[in-house]
Amino acid sequence: MSAARGFASDNYSGVHPEILEAITAANHDHAPAYGADRWTAAAQERFREHFGPAARAFPVFNGSGANVVAIAAVTASWEAVICPVTAHLHVDECGAPERVGGVKLFTVETPDGKLTTELLEGAFPWERIGDEHASQPRVVSIANSTELGTVYEPAEVRAIADAAHARGLLLHVDGARIANAAAAQKVGLGELTTDAGVDLLSFGGTKNGLLFGEAVVFLAEGLGEGAEFVRKQLMQLASKMRFAGAQLEALLAGDLWRRNAAQANRMAARLGAALEGVGGVELVQPVEANGVFAKLPAAAIERLELDPDGNRAFYVWDEAGTVRLMCSWDTEAEDVDAFVASVEETVADTAGSSR
Amino acid sequence: MSAARGFASDNYSGVHPEILEAITAANHDHAPAYGADRWTAAAQERFREHFGPAARAFPVFNGSGANVVAIAAVTASWEAVICPVTAHLHVDECGAPERVGGVKLFTVETPDGKLTTELLEGAFPWERIGDEHASQPRVVSIANSTELGTVYEPAEVRAIADAAHARGLLLHVDGARIANAAAAQKVGLGELTTDAGVDLLSFGGTKNGLLFGEAVVFLAEGLGEGAEFVRKQLMQLASKMRFAGAQLEALLAGDLWRRNAAQANRMAARLGAALEGVGGVELVQPVEANGVFAKLPAAAIERLELDPDGNRAFYVWDEAGTVRLMCSWDTEAEDVDAFVASVEETVADTAGSSR
Amino acid sequence: MSAARGFASDNYSGVHPEILEAITAANHDHAPAYGADRWTAAAQERFREHFGPAARAFPVFNGSGANVVAIAAVTASWEAVICPVTAHLHVDECGAPERVGGVKLFTVETPDGKLTTELLEGAFPWERIGDEHASQPRVVSIANSTELGTVYEPAEVRAIADAAHARGLLLHVDGARIANAAAAQKVGLGELTTDAGVDLLSFGGTKNGLLFGEAVVFLAEGLGEGAEFVRKQLMQLASKMRFAGAQLEALLAGDLWRRNAAQANRMAARLGAALEGVGGVELVQPVEANGVFAKLPAAAIERLELDPDGNRAFYVWDEAGTVRLMCSWDTEAEDVDAFVASVEETVADTAGSSR
Amino acid sequence: MSAARGFASDNYSGVHPEILEAITAANHDHAPAYGADRWTAAAQERFREHFGPAARAFPVFNGSGANVVAIAAVTASWEAVICPVTAHLHVDECGAPERVGGVKLFTVETPDGKLTTELLEGAFPWERIGDEHASQPRVVSIANSTELGTVYEPAEVRAIADAAHARGLLLHVDGARIANAAAAQKVGLGELTTDAGVDLLSFGGTKNGLLFGEAVVFLAEGLGEGAEFVRKQLMQLASKMRFAGAQLEALLAGDLWRRNAAQANRMAARLGAALEGVGGVELVQPVEANGVFAKLPAAAIERLELDPDGNRAFYVWDEAGTVRLMCSWDTEAEDVDAFVASVEETVADTAGSSR
Repeated sequence: MSAARGFASDNYSGVHPEILEAITAANHDHAPAYGADRWTAAAQERFREHFGPAARAFPVFNGSGANVVAIAAVTASWEAVICPVTAHLHVDECGAPERVGGVKLFTVETPDGKLTTELLEGAFPWERIGDEHASQPRVVSIANSTELGTVYEPAEVRAIADAAHARGLLLHVDGARIANAAAAQKVGLGELTTDAGVDLLSFGGTKNGLLFGEAVVFLAEGLGEGAEFVRKQLMQLASKMRFAGAQLEALLAGDLWRRNAAQANRMAARLGAALEGVGGVELVQPVEANGVFAKLPAAAIERLELDPDGNRAFYVWDEAGTVRLMCSWDTEAEDVDAFVASVEETVADTAGSSR
Repeated sequence: MSAARGFASDNYSGVHPEILEAITAANHDHAPAYGADRWTAAAQERFREHFGPAARAFPVFNGSGANVVAIAAVTASWEAVICPVTAHLHVDECGAPERVGGVKLFTVETPDGKLTTELLEGAFPWERIGDEHASQPRVVSIANSTELGTVYEPAEVRAIADAAHARGLLLHVDGARIANAAAAQKVGLGELTTDAGVDLLSFGGTKNGLLFGEAVVFLAEGLGEGAEFVRKQLMQLASKMRFAGAQLEALLAGDLWRRNAAQANRMAARLGAALEGVGGVELVQPVEANGVFAKLPAAAIERLELDPDGNRAFYVWDEAGTVRLMCSWDTEAEDVDAFVASVEETVADTAGSSR
Repeated sequence: MSAARGFASDNYSGVHPEILEAITAANHDHAPAYGADRWTAAAQERFREHFGPAARAFPVFNGSGANVVAIAAVTASWEAVICPVTAHLHVDECGAPERVGGVKLFTVETPDGKLTTELLEGAFPWERIGDEHASQPRVVSIANSTELGTVYEPAEVRAIADAAHARGLLLHVDGARIANAAAAQKVGLGELTTDAGVDLLSFGGTKNGLLFGEAVVFLAEGLGEGAEFVRKQLMQLASKMRFAGAQLEALLAGDLWRRNAAQANRMAARLGAALEGVGGVELVQPVEANGVFAKLPAAAIERLELDPDGNRAFYVWDEAGTVRLMCSWDTEAEDVDAFVASVEETVADTAGSSR
Repeated sequence: MSAARGFASDNYSGVHPEILEAITAANHDHAPAYGADRWTAAAQERFREHFGPAARAFPVFNGSGANVVAIAAVTASWEAVICPVTAHLHVDECGAPERVGGVKLFTVETPDGKLTTELLEGAFPWERIGDEHASQPRVVSIANSTELGTVYEPAEVRAIADAAHARGLLLHVDGARIANAAAAQKVGLGELTTDAGVDLLSFGGTKNGLLFGEAVVFLAEGLGEGAEFVRKQLMQLASKMRFAGAQLEALLAGDLWRRNAAQANRMAARLGAALEGVGGVELVQPVEANGVFAKLPAAAIERLELDPDGNRAFYVWDEAGTVRLMCSWDTEAEDVDAFVASVEETVADTAGSSR
């Protein structure tokens, strides 16, 4: 008996076979701990290939670690981060940015999880720069793809980067799903980040087929002094680092990062298109990466939220009846089609019931 | 070309084959993230078997994470930890206990890395309990086995636990190498902890054959309220937790924990005994677990510190010429014997040179 | 040559003569430091008279200290505070609540600086209570009077307190101007706080005629365990505490607190009424305490912002041309009338200029 | 009925009349808040006169605030402070340096509260500079005069400064009693600090006759960037700053700082000399500033600890029977003589009793 492949999260999936092979291949003899091994060195080289020669990557355990280490490494205690109110940083890290990273967050309402230069302009009363009573913005943080499944194009990133830089701020990208964003637009990872003016990146691996592992990547020259101390102090330094290095190497050396992300994206597109055709179902965000945000009738949510084995099929996103459906690197067309069929059936069954 | 198995650290070794099998076996289909999976549930059951029915385990990524989450979960911001001055907490976590855990450390000099009730008595001016100007001790933290390769017997742990409890303090054990301590004394994990009055434990897995993974284990009833929030906020909550769970399960279900630790211990005993017979070499700590602390002539250190391939063979522990030699679960007699031979040879060769 | 009494802030005023007398009267011989003196004991008694027998006051240096000590004393590291987006806590404490207090703030937009039960309901996705990924609200914090010069009546406070308590949250009042709020409504300090369900209060003294000094006051039974340690650790414990105690005693023993606040309120009412009659000037908030928020023509702002001696006459509140005019305990009718006259004159003079 | 002038602490004394006059003189009209007033500007000028043209002073509320703001302003989160184990920073600030300042302390045992270059050399395993696992020393902190009443001469300070600088560290002086140290040696404040290589200073006022008020003083060029934000965030920024400025001005403009300190020192010398002549009493530290550390018979301690009115006459320093006797700016010869007489009498009375 095994759990179905549902749509609860792209971290419900397991490890891609090529990644597990890479782990296995690295598992012989002794290797220096804490990153002084050859797998981590090779991964560093891959990061430079993708993100440019100035890129310096610091592998960490998880996405919270990547975000908080990244931000802590470039901010003083009185500095702040501007981000959309839907940012993982703000809503899903249990206060780690504030308590552990030591920054304040200024949040911005957005329709689709995406910051714009206009929204940025209104995100802080800029006349207070230099006023010791106010936390001072230092970083703008956006997620790409966003927590709502939407994607910034390189030009959009560039516009925000320029606006941030004009204010003396850095642009950070929470790239837990940066591969999905790049794959969706058929651009390279560097095109969507370094080339678009991004200063530092949380590079995501776990959701894209790794067992564990993300990386803080400083893209701009001269950033991140002391980051090795920050990573250690924030408890994100793995002793058997070779296995993080080997995974990141395997993900980035060929096109595995893109294959995995593209598969997830394709399945989300299929799912979105199919759901759009179901009466009573409404997409509330454009499907641009690997997530589908759809309004389902309440009675359907209630019946479908858990699959027959009691596993969570998806998460309810808000009280308005929006559900989040995430596709993963291992999602198959049959998974999508079966789910859509069950939605259709359930909606038909429950059509008479009022909410 | 592969690196030799040296004695730099027990985290230079890789993943035990049975652990990698367990990871592979868990790698199918989807599983709930963040610990709501069946592998983690099974691991929980193993912890209860070993540590008693009240035990609640919170898997985390690494040893720093285990120590800091453990302590943060049971202390208020004005509370403090008493530990030997050699504690990993004090010297090897880059200030994480203070900066991230929010506690002050009061440290105690010891001859052998082991706290005693007498040393504890002098570790704080107890008349200051209740004085708002002084950080208030809340936790006594000892490592077993210690950072100097020594081991506390159950009765020694019990004595410290009693003294701590009499003061209203909790006893925490940094058990990065608790398996080595238990194997060395041929006692169970629970005998050395729960049964001896330990309140909370950092249970070590990485150094004992895991890819990654430790656990904060609350042993006493009523401890650790809110620990799930602390773990998340301190960025130690793995999304694909099933792989932590599967590893811990595999380690604890049978006797793998003991086999691995016993092998490392045996090799350290062999190494210690052999080195003791080499002229000019002196053991500076009793060999009780998997570490050997020995004084080597300076010229020998210089020649042997790096192996012919440039890999670190061991770490120099202090400027007095002490080196630390750690054996791992995969250390073989041939590794030990070859190293001892090279020491003998080098000492002989360099006997005439003065430092 | 002396600076005029302007409207920049109620902390531009000095020390009320009766307060300075109290300081002088306490200045003889030695007295125990850190609060074990008879003046502080007397002040404690006054706090109990006003706020009820359970009230326990911890004098601190300033308003930031009061707010952060109050909140830190009742929250765990993963807990959060809900407050209006205009809260001093959020915009004027340079990140102290997050960085020093260790809490996250969830902010709410309001029209007038006042929280309501409806706004509170939408301030957090309550289904996430218990979800370790989200900071957990523990405190609702409102200011009375607010940063926009508006006032909560006892019934409004009670409604919020009831809603907070129903959610298991505490209600904190930032009472930097609690005296103004009470005086405005001709109610007692306790009626507006303890009797209305407030759990803890930052009691303001500095803006109401003290040289320095505020107090964290725990109003509800059983709150604030360890607050003496928090106050000390957050560096808000005065050594020569008798002078804080003597000031607070003098403020609260008779009706000085009310006289001072009422005078400031009266002057604000006079100022608001007069400005309302000036063409081109518009009040943007009701004048309920000692602050007037008015829109002035840009040309008038430019001319009047600094007085002839170069002293700041008021602060520009936003880029829409709102200015904040604060009256103090020492503001006189002549100050108000002269300022209104200069506004009238300037508005007339600059009427033709476009912004 | 008034409390006697005892020897419990130099913060049991009140405000020097000239200081209170300065406060009163500053108490008219409005003045800009937060330090933009003329009294604070005048105090700044005085700091430059004493400490050199590069000196920048940031007045704060209290000594804990001065120490922690000073250190936080010059350290990254992974940096550490080296100080004697008797440092106020370590034993009397309830963990504020760690929890609020975000630093780790490495402490050094000393015979007399004074660091030396030899002790500094052994205070940290310097080969770990650059090792991300270890907190990195950034500041050496000494108190002058020390918590044990001893004093560093300029040459001793210079030696430590040179050793610190050679390691790339800064030298901080906790100068809660810097005036006593300078007065004791008949040198200027600058001679003992700036001229001796000190980089930053916590300048003490409260214990030397102020109502409240200390200052963080950056002595070396280029230090303390962002200190105004640190001071605000650490809640040490007074709104009615003019009264801190006026006090500091009054203390430093003439020779009040020296008169007050010299009087306290003279009284300590008188007290030390007299006690030395009492049988059964032994001085355990040289009397170099305004404190006397003496061993008294247990029976005498018990009788004398509280004066006839129940006020504390002195503090017991350790369990070996050492008491600390602090003289203040207002201590008179008659206070000393009366106390000595009572010691003599009590010792004689209790001579037969064994402890």
